[in-house]
Amino acid sequence: MMRQASGHLTVTAPRPGLHAITADMARWVAAQHMEEGLLTLFCRHTSASLLIQENAAPAAARDLEAYFARIAPEDARYAHDDEGPDDMPAHLRAALTQTHLSIPVSGGRLALGMWQGIYLFEHRRRPTRREIALHLIGA
Amino acid sequence: MMRQASGHLTVTAPRPGLHAITADMARWVAAQHMEEGLLTLFCRHTSASLLIQENAAPAAARDLEAYFARIAPEDARYAHDDEGPDDMPAHLRAALTQTHLSIPVSGGRLALGMWQGIYLFEHRRRPTRREIALHLIGA
Amino acid sequence: MMRQASGHLTVTAPRPGLHAITADMARWVAAQHMEEGLLTLFCRHTSASLLIQENAAPAAARDLEAYFARIAPEDARYAHDDEGPDDMPAHLRAALTQTHLSIPVSGGRLALGMWQGIYLFEHRRRPTRREIALHLIGA
Repeated sequence: MMRQASGHLTVTAPRPGLHAITADMARWVAAQHMEEGLLTLFCRHTSASLLIQENAAPAAARDLEAYFARIAPEDARYAHDDEGPDDMPAHLRAALTQTHLSIPVSGGRLALGMWQGIYLFEHRRRPTRREIALHLIGA
Repeated sequence: MMRQASGHLTVTAPRPGLHAITADMARWVAAQHMEEGLLTLFCRHTSASLLIQENAAPAAARDLEAYFARIAPEDARYAHDDEGPDDMPAHLRAALTQTHLSIPVSGGRLALGMWQGIYLFEHRRRPTRREIALHLIGA
Repeated sequence: MMRQASGHLTVTAPRPGLHAITADMARWVAAQHMEEGLLTLFCRHTSASLLIQENAAPAAARDLEAYFARIAPEDARYAHDDEGPDDMPAHLRAALTQTHLSIPVSGGRLALGMWQGIYLFEHRRRPTRREIALHLIGA
Protein backbone atom coordinates (compact mmCIF):
# COMPACT_ATOMS: atom_id res chain seq x y z
CA MET A 1 0.00 0.00 0.00
CA MET A 2 1.59 3.27 -1.13
CA ARG A 3 1.86 6.07 1.38
CA GLN A 4 3.86 9.22 2.07
CA ALA A 5 5.53 10.95 5.02
CA SER A 6 6.53 14.57 5.52
CA GLY A 7 8.88 16.15 8.02
CA HIS A 8 11.68 18.61 8.33
CA LEU A 9 15.25 18.79 9.50
CA THR A 10 16.51 21.90 11.27
CA VAL A 11 20.27 22.47 11.08
CA THR A 12 22.61 25.21 12.18
CA ALA A 13 26.04 24.76 10.63
CA PRO A 14 28.73 25.99 13.03
CA ARG A 15 30.76 27.45 10.14
CA PRO A 16 30.27 28.14 6.42
CA GLY A 17 30.86 25.23 4.06
CA LEU A 18 29.80 21.60 3.89
CA HIS A 19 27.88 20.24 6.87
CA ALA A 20 27.09 16.50 6.77
CA ILE A 21 23.44 15.48 7.27
CA THR A 22 23.72 11.92 5.96
CA ALA A 23 23.20 10.28 9.37
CA ASP A 24 20.16 12.48 10.14
CA MET A 25 18.62 11.52 6.83
CA ALA A 26 19.34 7.80 7.26
CA ARG A 27 17.72 7.92 10.70
CA TRP A 28 14.62 9.76 9.47
CA VAL A 29 14.16 7.36 6.56
CA ALA A 30 14.60 4.30 8.83
CA ALA A 31 11.90 5.68 11.17
CA GLN A 32 9.35 5.74 8.31
CA HIS A 33 9.66 1.95 7.77
CA MET A 34 9.37 2.00 4.00
CA GLU A 35 11.07 -0.68 1.92
CA GLU A 36 11.03 1.16 -1.39
CA GLY A 37 10.42 4.79 -2.26
CA LEU A 38 11.78 8.22 -3.05
CA LEU A 39 13.14 10.73 -0.52
CA THR A 40 13.17 14.43 -1.41
CA LEU A 41 15.06 17.06 0.60
CA PHE A 42 14.17 20.69 -0.09
CA CYS A 43 16.25 23.56 1.36
CA ARG A 44 13.92 26.45 2.21
CA HIS A 45 16.62 29.12 1.75
CA THR A 46 18.44 30.91 -1.07
CA SER A 47 21.76 31.46 0.73
CA ALA A 48 22.33 27.81 1.67
CA SER A 49 22.01 24.75 -0.57
CA LEU A 50 22.28 20.97 -0.78
CA LEU A 51 24.96 18.81 -2.30
CA ILE A 52 25.97 15.18 -2.55
CA GLN A 53 29.73 14.88 -2.27
CA GLU A 54 32.53 12.55 -1.33
CA ASN A 55 32.25 11.60 2.35
CA ALA A 56 35.77 10.40 3.10
CA ALA A 57 38.46 13.03 2.43
CA PRO A 58 38.26 16.25 4.48
CA ALA A 59 40.70 17.80 1.97
CA ALA A 60 38.15 17.29 -0.81
CA ALA A 61 35.54 19.26 1.17
CA ARG A 62 38.04 22.07 1.79
CA ASP A 63 38.98 22.17 -1.93
CA LEU A 64 35.32 22.34 -2.87
CA GLU A 65 34.64 25.21 -0.46
CA ALA A 66 37.71 27.10 -1.73
CA TYR A 67 36.58 26.56 -5.31
CA PHE A 68 33.14 28.09 -4.77
CA ALA A 69 34.70 30.97 -2.84
CA ARG A 70 36.86 31.58 -5.90
CA ILE A 71 34.28 31.33 -8.69
CA ALA A 72 31.63 33.33 -6.78
CA PRO A 73 33.81 35.71 -4.75
CA GLU A 74 32.81 38.18 -2.08
CA ASP A 75 34.75 41.07 -3.52
CA ALA A 76 33.04 41.34 -6.91
CA ARG A 77 30.99 44.49 -7.41
CA TYR A 78 27.42 43.40 -6.76
CA ALA A 79 24.43 45.76 -6.99
CA HIS A 80 22.74 43.80 -4.18
CA ASP A 81 25.05 44.39 -1.21
CA ASP A 82 22.79 45.77 1.55
CA GLU A 83 22.71 42.41 3.38
CA GLY A 84 26.49 42.19 3.65
CA PRO A 85 29.35 41.13 1.33
CA ASP A 86 28.62 37.41 1.83
CA ASP A 87 24.98 37.63 0.75
CA MET A 88 25.13 37.89 -3.05
CA PRO A 89 27.91 35.26 -3.43
CA ALA A 90 25.70 33.04 -1.23
CA HIS A 91 22.86 33.31 -3.78
CA LEU A 92 25.27 32.55 -6.64
CA ARG A 93 26.76 29.50 -4.90
CA ALA A 94 23.24 28.27 -4.15
CA ALA A 95 22.27 28.74 -7.82
CA LEU A 96 25.29 26.69 -8.91
CA THR A 97 24.48 23.80 -6.56
CA GLN A 98 21.11 22.31 -5.49
CA THR A 99 18.01 23.53 -3.69
CA HIS A 100 16.60 20.01 -3.67
CA LEU A 101 17.81 16.43 -3.87
CA SER A 102 15.80 13.28 -4.56
CA ILE A 103 17.28 9.93 -3.56
CA PRO A 104 15.69 6.50 -4.14
CA VAL A 105 15.11 4.23 -1.14
CA SER A 106 15.72 0.54 -1.74
CA GLY A 107 15.64 -2.30 0.80
CA GLY A 108 14.67 0.27 3.43
CA ARG A 109 17.84 2.32 2.87
CA LEU A 110 18.96 5.34 0.87
CA ALA A 111 20.53 4.22 -2.42
CA LEU A 112 23.68 6.31 -1.83
CA GLY A 113 26.97 5.09 -3.22
CA MET A 114 29.67 4.02 -0.78
CA TRP A 115 31.53 7.34 -1.00
CA GLN A 116 28.52 9.64 -1.08
CA GLY A 117 27.41 11.90 1.74
CA ILE A 118 24.51 14.38 1.87
CA TYR A 119 25.55 17.91 2.80
CA LEU A 120 23.98 21.21 3.69
CA PHE A 121 26.20 23.78 1.99
CA GLU A 122 26.08 26.88 4.21
CA HIS A 123 27.06 30.02 2.30
CA ARG A 124 26.63 32.72 4.97
CA ARG A 125 29.33 33.49 7.51
CA ARG A 126 27.08 33.90 10.54
CA PRO A 127 25.57 30.60 11.89
CA THR A 128 21.94 30.56 10.74
CA ARG A 129 19.07 28.18 11.50
CA ARG A 130 18.22 26.33 8.28
CA GLU A 131 15.11 24.31 7.59
CA ILE A 132 15.06 21.42 5.14
CA ALA A 133 11.62 20.09 4.19
CA LEU A 134 11.50 16.29 3.80
CA HIS A 135 9.14 14.17 1.75
CA LEU A 136 9.12 10.41 1.36
CA ILE A 137 6.76 8.47 -0.86
CA GLY A 138 6.70 4.72 -1.25
CA ALA A 139 5.65 1.50 0.43
CA MET B 1 -5.98 7.70 -1.43
CA MET B 2 -2.81 8.49 -3.39
CA ARG B 3 -3.19 9.97 -6.84
CA GLN B 4 -1.27 12.03 -9.38
CA ALA B 5 -1.88 14.92 -11.74
CA SER B 6 -0.01 16.04 -14.85
CA GLY B 7 -0.09 19.31 -16.73
CA HIS B 8 2.11 21.90 -18.30
CA LEU B 9 2.88 25.58 -18.09
CA THR B 10 3.65 27.54 -21.22
CA VAL B 11 5.71 30.69 -20.71
CA THR B 12 7.28 33.27 -22.99
CA ALA B 13 9.72 35.47 -21.08
CA PRO B 14 9.68 39.00 -22.53
CA ARG B 15 13.45 39.31 -22.04
CA PRO B 16 16.38 37.02 -21.16
CA GLY B 17 16.96 36.36 -17.46
CA LEU B 18 14.81 35.36 -14.50
CA HIS B 19 11.08 35.19 -15.08
CA ALA B 20 8.95 34.46 -11.99
CA ILE B 21 6.48 31.56 -12.23
CA THR B 22 5.81 31.16 -8.50
CA ALA B 23 2.22 32.40 -8.68
CA ASP B 24 1.40 30.16 -11.67
CA MET B 25 2.74 27.17 -9.77
CA ALA B 26 0.88 28.01 -6.56
CA ARG B 27 -2.35 28.33 -8.57
CA TRP B 28 -1.87 25.04 -10.40
CA VAL B 29 -1.08 23.18 -7.17
CA ALA B 30 -4.12 24.71 -5.41
CA ALA B 31 -6.36 23.54 -8.27
CA GLN B 32 -5.29 19.90 -7.70
CA HIS B 33 -6.64 19.92 -4.11
CA MET B 34 -3.91 17.79 -2.58
CA GLU B 35 -2.93 18.22 1.05
CA GLU B 36 0.45 16.51 0.88
CA GLY B 37 2.64 15.55 -2.03
CA LEU B 38 5.52 16.31 -4.35
CA LEU B 39 5.48 18.75 -7.28
CA THR B 40 7.98 18.32 -10.09
CA LEU B 41 8.62 20.95 -12.78
CA PHE B 42 10.56 19.83 -15.85
CA CYS B 43 11.81 22.34 -18.44
CA ARG B 44 11.59 20.75 -21.91
CA HIS B 45 14.43 22.85 -23.35
CA THR B 46 18.24 23.02 -23.24
CA SER B 47 18.60 26.80 -23.66
CA ALA B 48 16.34 27.76 -20.76
CA SER B 49 16.35 26.38 -17.23
CA LEU B 50 14.75 26.50 -13.79
CA LEU B 51 15.98 28.09 -10.59
CA ILE B 52 14.79 28.84 -7.10
CA GLN B 53 16.06 32.22 -6.02
CA GLU B 54 15.41 35.14 -3.71
CA ASN B 55 12.06 36.73 -4.55
CA ALA B 56 12.44 40.16 -2.97
CA ALA B 57 15.41 42.14 -4.30
CA PRO B 58 15.42 42.99 -8.03
CA ALA B 59 19.12 43.84 -7.66
CA ALA B 60 19.84 40.23 -6.66
CA ALA B 61 18.21 38.98 -9.85
CA ARG B 62 20.22 41.43 -11.97
CA ASP B 63 23.47 40.39 -10.21
CA LEU B 64 22.67 36.74 -10.85
CA GLU B 65 21.99 37.37 -14.55
CA ALA B 66 25.21 39.38 -14.87
CA TYR B 67 27.13 36.62 -13.13
CA PHE B 68 25.99 33.90 -15.54
CA ALA B 69 26.65 36.22 -18.50
CA ARG B 70 30.20 36.56 -17.18
CA ILE B 71 31.04 32.92 -16.38
CA ALA B 72 29.46 31.58 -19.60
CA PRO B 73 30.07 34.48 -22.01
CA GLU B 74 28.85 34.93 -25.55
CA ASP B 75 32.22 35.89 -26.97
CA ALA B 76 34.15 32.72 -26.15
CA ARG B 77 35.20 30.69 -29.18
CA TYR B 78 32.61 27.93 -29.39
CA ALA B 79 32.67 25.22 -32.06
CA HIS B 80 28.85 25.15 -32.00
CA ASP B 81 27.92 28.64 -33.24
CA ASP B 82 25.57 28.06 -36.17
CA GLU B 83 22.48 28.91 -34.08
CA GLY B 84 23.82 32.32 -33.06
CA PRO B 85 26.26 33.65 -30.43
CA ASP B 86 23.72 33.27 -27.60
CA ASP B 87 23.06 29.57 -28.23
CA MET B 88 26.11 27.81 -26.79
CA PRO B 89 26.28 30.03 -23.66
CA ALA B 90 22.58 29.22 -23.22
CA HIS B 91 23.38 25.49 -23.05
CA LEU B 92 26.20 26.13 -20.56
CA ARG B 93 24.03 28.31 -18.30
CA ALA B 94 21.31 25.65 -18.43
CA ALA B 95 23.88 22.97 -17.48
CA LEU B 96 24.99 25.05 -14.47
CA THR B 97 21.43 25.52 -13.20
CA GLN B 98 18.43 23.13 -13.20
CA THR B 99 16.35 21.35 -15.81
CA HIS B 100 13.97 20.15 -13.11
CA LEU B 101 12.84 21.10 -9.63
CA SER B 102 10.92 19.03 -7.09
CA ILE B 103 9.14 20.83 -4.25
CA PRO B 104 7.18 19.17 -1.42
CA VAL B 105 3.55 20.17 -0.90
CA SER B 106 2.42 20.41 2.71
CA GLY B 107 -0.91 21.62 4.05
CA GLY B 108 -2.05 22.09 0.46
CA ARG B 109 0.77 24.54 -0.30
CA LEU B 110 4.27 24.50 -1.77
CA ALA B 111 6.86 24.23 1.02
CA LEU B 112 8.82 27.24 -0.28
CA GLY B 113 10.72 29.40 2.21
CA MET B 114 9.51 32.96 2.75
CA TRP B 115 12.13 34.46 0.42
CA GLN B 116 12.04 31.80 -2.29
CA GLY B 117 10.58 32.24 -5.75
CA ILE B 118 10.45 29.79 -8.67
CA TYR B 119 11.95 31.14 -11.88
CA LEU B 120 12.25 30.22 -15.51
CA PHE B 121 15.77 31.29 -16.45
CA GLU B 122 15.59 32.29 -20.13
CA HIS B 123 19.01 32.17 -21.78
CA ARG B 124 18.17 33.12 -25.39
CA ARG B 125 17.81 36.74 -26.48
CA ARG B 126 14.77 36.28 -28.70
CA PRO B 127 11.46 35.67 -26.81
CA THR B 128 10.72 31.97 -27.18
CA ARG B 129 7.72 29.85 -26.16
CA ARG B 130 8.85 27.51 -23.36
CA GLU B 131 7.02 24.49 -22.08
CA ILE B 132 7.39 23.21 -18.53
CA ALA B 133 5.95 19.76 -17.82
CA LEU B 134 4.28 19.48 -14.39
CA HIS B 135 3.74 16.41 -12.25
CA LEU B 136 2.15 16.22 -8.82
CA ILE B 137 1.83 13.08 -6.76
CA GLY B 138 0.23 12.82 -3.32
CA ALA B 139 -3.09 12.77 -1.54
CA MET C 1 -3.67 1.76 -8.97
CA MET C 2 -0.42 3.52 -8.03
CA ARG C 3 2.73 1.44 -7.91
CA GLN C 4 6.51 1.84 -8.12
CA ALA C 5 9.45 0.13 -9.78
CA SER C 6 13.15 0.18 -8.95
CA GLY C 7 16.15 -0.82 -10.99
CA HIS C 8 19.58 0.28 -12.02
CA LEU C 9 21.58 1.04 -15.10
CA THR C 10 25.26 0.13 -15.26
CA VAL C 11 27.34 2.17 -17.69
CA THR C 12 31.00 2.38 -18.57
CA ALA C 13 31.72 5.43 -20.69
CA PRO C 14 34.54 4.68 -23.15
CA ARG C 15 35.98 8.20 -22.68
CA PRO C 16 35.45 11.17 -20.35
CA GLY C 17 32.60 13.53 -21.23
CA LEU C 18 28.96 13.15 -22.18
CA HIS C 19 27.68 9.62 -22.71
CA ALA C 20 24.07 9.32 -23.93
CA ILE C 21 21.74 7.06 -21.93
CA THR C 22 18.45 8.35 -23.36
CA ALA C 23 17.63 5.15 -25.25
CA ASP C 24 18.41 2.96 -22.20
CA MET C 25 16.08 5.08 -20.10
CA ALA C 26 13.29 5.06 -22.68
CA ARG C 27 13.55 1.27 -22.89
CA TRP C 28 13.49 0.77 -19.12
CA VAL C 29 10.48 3.08 -18.72
CA ALA C 30 8.59 1.33 -21.55
CA ALA C 31 9.18 -2.04 -19.85
CA GLN C 32 7.41 -0.82 -16.67
CA HIS C 33 4.14 -0.21 -18.57
CA MET C 34 3.13 2.94 -16.73
CA GLU C 35 1.04 5.59 -18.42
CA GLU C 36 1.78 8.46 -16.03
CA GLY C 37 4.44 8.88 -13.39
CA LEU C 38 7.81 10.23 -12.34
CA LEU C 39 11.20 8.72 -13.21
CA THR C 40 14.19 9.48 -10.99
CA LEU C 41 17.79 8.68 -11.95
CA PHE C 42 20.38 8.82 -9.20
CA CYS C 43 24.12 8.61 -9.94
CA ARG C 44 25.83 6.69 -7.11
CA HIS C 45 29.20 8.42 -7.61
CA THR C 46 30.84 11.77 -6.86
CA SER C 47 33.20 11.87 -9.85
CA ALA C 48 30.52 11.35 -12.51
CA SER C 49 27.20 13.15 -12.82
CA LEU C 50 23.98 13.46 -14.83
CA LEU C 51 22.90 16.13 -17.28
CA ILE C 52 20.15 16.84 -19.73
CA GLN C 53 21.57 18.49 -22.82
CA GLU C 54 21.02 19.06 -26.48
CA ASN C 55 21.00 15.74 -28.35
CA ALA C 56 21.66 16.83 -31.91
CA ALA C 57 24.94 18.76 -32.32
CA PRO C 58 28.16 16.88 -31.45
CA ALA C 59 29.93 20.27 -31.43
CA ALA C 60 27.69 21.42 -28.55
CA ALA C 61 28.74 18.40 -26.47
CA ARG C 62 32.42 19.08 -27.21
CA ASP C 63 32.00 22.78 -26.25
CA LEU C 64 30.32 21.78 -23.02
CA GLU C 65 33.10 19.34 -22.13
CA ALA C 66 35.76 21.96 -22.94
CA TYR C 67 33.91 24.51 -20.81
CA PHE C 68 33.87 22.32 -17.70
CA ALA C 69 37.53 21.40 -18.26
CA ARG C 70 38.26 25.13 -18.25
CA ILE C 71 36.21 26.26 -15.23
CA ALA C 72 37.27 23.29 -13.07
CA PRO C 73 40.78 22.60 -14.40
CA GLU C 74 43.14 19.77 -13.56
CA ASP C 75 46.14 21.98 -12.95
CA ALA C 76 44.80 24.07 -10.07
CA ARG C 77 46.50 23.46 -6.74
CA TYR C 78 44.16 21.12 -4.88
CA ALA C 79 44.84 19.84 -1.37
CA HIS C 80 43.09 16.57 -2.29
CA ASP C 81 45.35 15.14 -5.01
CA ASP C 82 46.25 11.64 -3.82
CA GLU C 83 43.76 10.00 -6.22
CA GLY C 84 45.28 11.68 -9.28
CA PRO C 85 45.03 15.09 -10.97
CA ASP C 86 41.61 14.31 -12.50
CA ASP C 87 39.96 13.42 -9.17
CA MET C 88 39.32 16.80 -7.53
CA PRO C 89 38.15 18.51 -10.75
CA ALA C 90 35.81 15.52 -11.16
CA HIS C 91 34.17 16.31 -7.80
CA LEU C 92 33.85 20.00 -8.75
CA ARG C 93 32.30 19.25 -12.15
CA ALA C 94 29.89 16.84 -10.45
CA ALA C 95 28.96 19.54 -7.90
CA LEU C 96 28.22 22.00 -10.73
CA THR C 97 25.95 19.55 -12.57
CA GLN C 98 23.46 16.97 -11.24
CA THR C 99 23.62 13.85 -9.09
CA HIS C 100 19.96 13.15 -9.79
CA LEU C 101 17.34 13.92 -12.41
CA SER C 102 13.57 13.52 -12.18
CA ILE C 103 11.56 13.39 -15.41
CA PRO C 104 7.77 13.12 -15.67
CA VAL C 105 6.29 10.24 -17.66
CA SER C 106 3.21 11.06 -19.71
CA GLY C 107 1.36 8.84 -22.18
CA GLY C 108 3.80 6.06 -21.29
CA ARG C 109 6.82 8.11 -22.40
CA LEU C 110 9.42 10.41 -20.87
CA ALA C 111 8.31 14.05 -21.19
CA LEU C 112 11.64 15.09 -22.77
CA GLY C 113 11.67 17.96 -25.23
CA MET C 114 12.51 17.20 -28.85
CA TRP C 115 16.15 18.28 -28.50
CA GLN C 116 16.81 16.86 -25.05
CA GLY C 117 18.98 13.86 -24.29
CA ILE C 118 19.91 12.30 -20.95
CA TYR C 119 23.65 11.99 -20.36
CA LEU C 120 26.03 10.44 -17.93
CA PHE C 121 28.81 13.01 -17.57
CA GLU C 122 31.98 11.01 -16.88
CA HIS C 123 34.66 13.14 -15.23
CA ARG C 124 37.46 10.60 -14.71
CA ARG C 125 39.94 9.75 -17.45
CA ARG C 126 40.05 6.00 -16.85
CA PRO C 127 36.89 4.08 -17.97
CA THR C 128 34.98 3.28 -14.78
CA ARG C 129 31.87 1.19 -14.12
CA ARG C 130 29.11 3.56 -13.02
CA GLU C 131 25.83 2.63 -11.42
CA ILE C 132 22.70 4.74 -11.75
CA ALA C 133 19.82 3.84 -9.42
CA LEU C 134 16.38 4.13 -11.07
CA HIS C 135 13.01 4.73 -9.45
CA LEU C 136 9.65 5.08 -11.16
CA ILE C 137 6.39 5.83 -9.40
CA GLY C 138 3.02 6.17 -11.06
CA ALA C 139 0.20 4.18 -12.63
